[in-house]
Amino acid sequence: MRQSELFTKTRRTAPKDEVSKNGRLLIQAGYINKEMAGVYDYLPLGLRVLKKIENIIREEMNKLGGQEIFMTTLQDPTLWKKSGRWDDKVVTDWFKTRNDEFGLSNTHEEPLTNLLKNHILSYKDLPVYVYQFQTKLRYELRAKSGLMRGREFIMKDLYSFSRTPEELDRFHDKCRKAYLNVFKRAGIGNKTYLTYASGGSFTKYSYEFQTLSEAGEDIIYLDKTKKIAINKEVYDEESVQTLKLNREKLIRERSIEVGNIFKLGTRFSDALGLKYVDKSGIERPVIMGSYGIGLGRLMGAIVEVLSDDKGIIWPVSVAPFKVHLVELKKGLARGLYEKLTKAGVETLYDDRDLTPGEKFNDADLIGIPWRLVVSEKTKNKVEVKRRNAKKVELISHDELIQQFS
Amino acid sequence: MRQSELFTKTRRTAPKDEVSKNGRLLIQAGYINKEMAGVYDYLPLGLRVLKKIENIIREEMNKLGGQEIFMTTLQDPTLWKKSGRWDDKVVTDWFKTRNDEFGLSNTHEEPLTNLLKNHILSYKDLPVYVYQFQTKLRYELRAKSGLMRGREFIMKDLYSFSRTPEELDRFHDKCRKAYLNVFKRAGIGNKTYLTYASGGSFTKYSYEFQTLSEAGEDIIYLDKTKKIAINKEVYDEESVQTLKLNREKLIRERSIEVGNIFKLGTRFSDALGLKYVDKSGIERPVIMGSYGIGLGRLMGAIVEVLSDDKGIIWPVSVAPFKVHLVELKKGLARGLYEKLTKAGVETLYDDRDLTPGEKFNDADLIGIPWRLVVSEKTKNKVEVKRRNAKKVELISHDELIQQFS
Repeated sequence: MRQSELFTKTRRTAPKDEVSKNGRLLIQAGYINKEMAGVYDYLPLGLRVLKKIENIIREEMNKLGGQEIFMTTLQDPTLWKKSGRWDDKVVTDWFKTRNDEFGLSNTHEEPLTNLLKNHILSYKDLPVYVYQFQTKLRYELRAKSGLMRGREFIMKDLYSFSRTPEELDRFHDKCRKAYLNVFKRAGIGNKTYLTYASGGSFTKYSYEFQTLSEAGEDIIYLDKTKKIAINKEVYDEESVQTLKLNREKLIRERSIEVGNIFKLGTRFSDALGLKYVDKSGIERPVIMGSYGIGLGRLMGAIVEVLSDDKGIIWPVSVAPFKVHLVELKKGLARGLYEKLTKAGVETLYDDRDLTPGEKFNDADLIGIPWRLVVSEKTKNKVEVKRRNAKKVELISHDELIQQFS
Repeated sequence: MRQSELFTKTRRTAPKDEVSKNGRLLIQAGYINKEMAGVYDYLPLGLRVLKKIENIIREEMNKLGGQEIFMTTLQDPTLWKKSGRWDDKVVTDWFKTRNDEFGLSNTHEEPLTNLLKNHILSYKDLPVYVYQFQTKLRYELRAKSGLMRGREFIMKDLYSFSRTPEELDRFHDKCRKAYLNVFKRAGIGNKTYLTYASGGSFTKYSYEFQTLSEAGEDIIYLDKTKKIAINKEVYDEESVQTLKLNREKLIRERSIEVGNIFKLGTRFSDALGLKYVDKSGIERPVIMGSYGIGLGRLMGAIVEVLSDDKGIIWPVSVAPFKVHLVELKKGLARGLYEKLTKAGVETLYDDRDLTPGEKFNDADLIGIPWRLVVSEKTKNKVEVKRRNAKKVELISHDELIQQFS
């Protein structure tokens, strides 16, 4: 894409009303726009990142046998009264429409459990794994962490429907691996740890995925060798022993919860009457699990972890473009832009009328992984630099195309 | 995909609480699920159709130079008060949250106009075309037409920002052609007509795209030769003369509005202060247009127009799968399924344990364009039949792969 045609502009300074690093950088670089506290629009660059994150997650969920659907924002109170979760004392962050006529998508256990009653009858219809990418609305009282804790955000929520606790366990284990794979592919694998957290009535612990960052709201106790952590909320002698950890080896860290997986048991299938008939003809409640990743929060966490004082440093896998082609004289890089585009290399082409300094600052702020500079000085070659490196290499067009396509 | 793994099941009969044909067929075949009146979930088959429609529209909008973004559901009352549209007497179908704290995405002129104030300064920054696929929530009092008039629906809304009325006109003309292309590609081009409708304060007429159907809520007067229609709401001597039509050649038809394009002028840029500095240094308001297509309504319209008493007849371009491979003996078509998948042919493989009659009924109901039958009778060949034809052809695997990949 030609940068002269991109309607968003970078800002010289970070927005003053934004305290989080991810919020400041993403707004300054033109990725997102703040509507209100915790409510952000995705602009062209931001939507490209969001879609890449979405596709990584989709691929991993499909590999697990997940089937994608798209549920609604408006929620029928009838269903939530059945599970006892319509009450604001039970779900404390409901958004509801005037006179509490409808709820707004806080989560989707109730409608999905109800929906499946039309499709699940016998043990032959199970297990089933259903997921979506859908907007959640939650009345957060303190929405001040940029994309990391919003009042409106897109979530991947998968729900598993199994016949037995053992079947749930097996999927749970597979999903845990898939989640670690998502975070690895999204570039924060080496900072993200499986963490034991509080479980609820069906199971003692749930799993969280915590990414080390000073911007996080969680405290975990981490064994770096075993790559396992315990959330502060369940950190005690018992949890340390259960996980066979050594208290002396655990280090206290601040972290961002980038995902969680949770065994629900029969909490919702009992309440809403989702049953199946087993091989011996006996009717049993379906056993459920839920598996969430907030896409905006993941994007925000990547920025928190991968950035420097000049701007963002995107991993290639989620970057809005692979290369940022910067020309220092009008039209000088047009031919190369066409070559790159033809070779299928996602390129942001800075063809704007600005000084080299302004262009370099923008490139650092926007944070595309590779910067390619074409000037009169580079002649027939291109100056290649990684966003997070100082080394500059001068290579020919042919070498460039070969390396990047 | 193996149909045995698809979690949705077809129903033997149409749902009784659904009066529209599109609603009945789409629910019966397992494309959508009704949460409440006018509020539907997209199930795996339905989401596949929706995504195909979305991609057709995206391609056409990108060709026009449109830049995709994603705005929010929660709406800030402050912006809507500036334009005078927060009042329920002005926008009569608002959904608002408790105590009218926030609005819910009825449309997006206000926030987008406001957003662009950060990015548009001079004539060099214009024109700009911005679009999104986003959920709209509207308090419809009568939501009874299946996907065609919902309380919650996904809309593609594009907004144009131009310097002069002439620049707006040029884009308007291009967009009109792009819209006709969308409907042609979606399989209803031969039933869809450019229609003059009421315009508002900035312009006498707006354009609608109306698809002939008895299920429609609109009445148009159509010149089939000139392929132009007039909506009943502006049908008078003056409009007939303006469009140089002959009243005697116009036929009265019932139709579904599948899209509209509308000149907004400076209605919102004035209210929200979106200005640009022209070449001579004078500050002027930006001139706007809006361009909508409801994705669910388009999907519903396709079903209304393209179906028979056995079920849906999808055009290839939006079908959930290209071929429906039906085996009449367990495992008989497994090899062919693998071949088709390898060749990149989107295949729904009916590997279920059902009678041939049940499988054929489901295939007709689901409406995938090509049915391929493998039985002991077909031996090494495949029986190929178009959904809307009676003719059956027996061809070899190689011919099949060649024809479909």
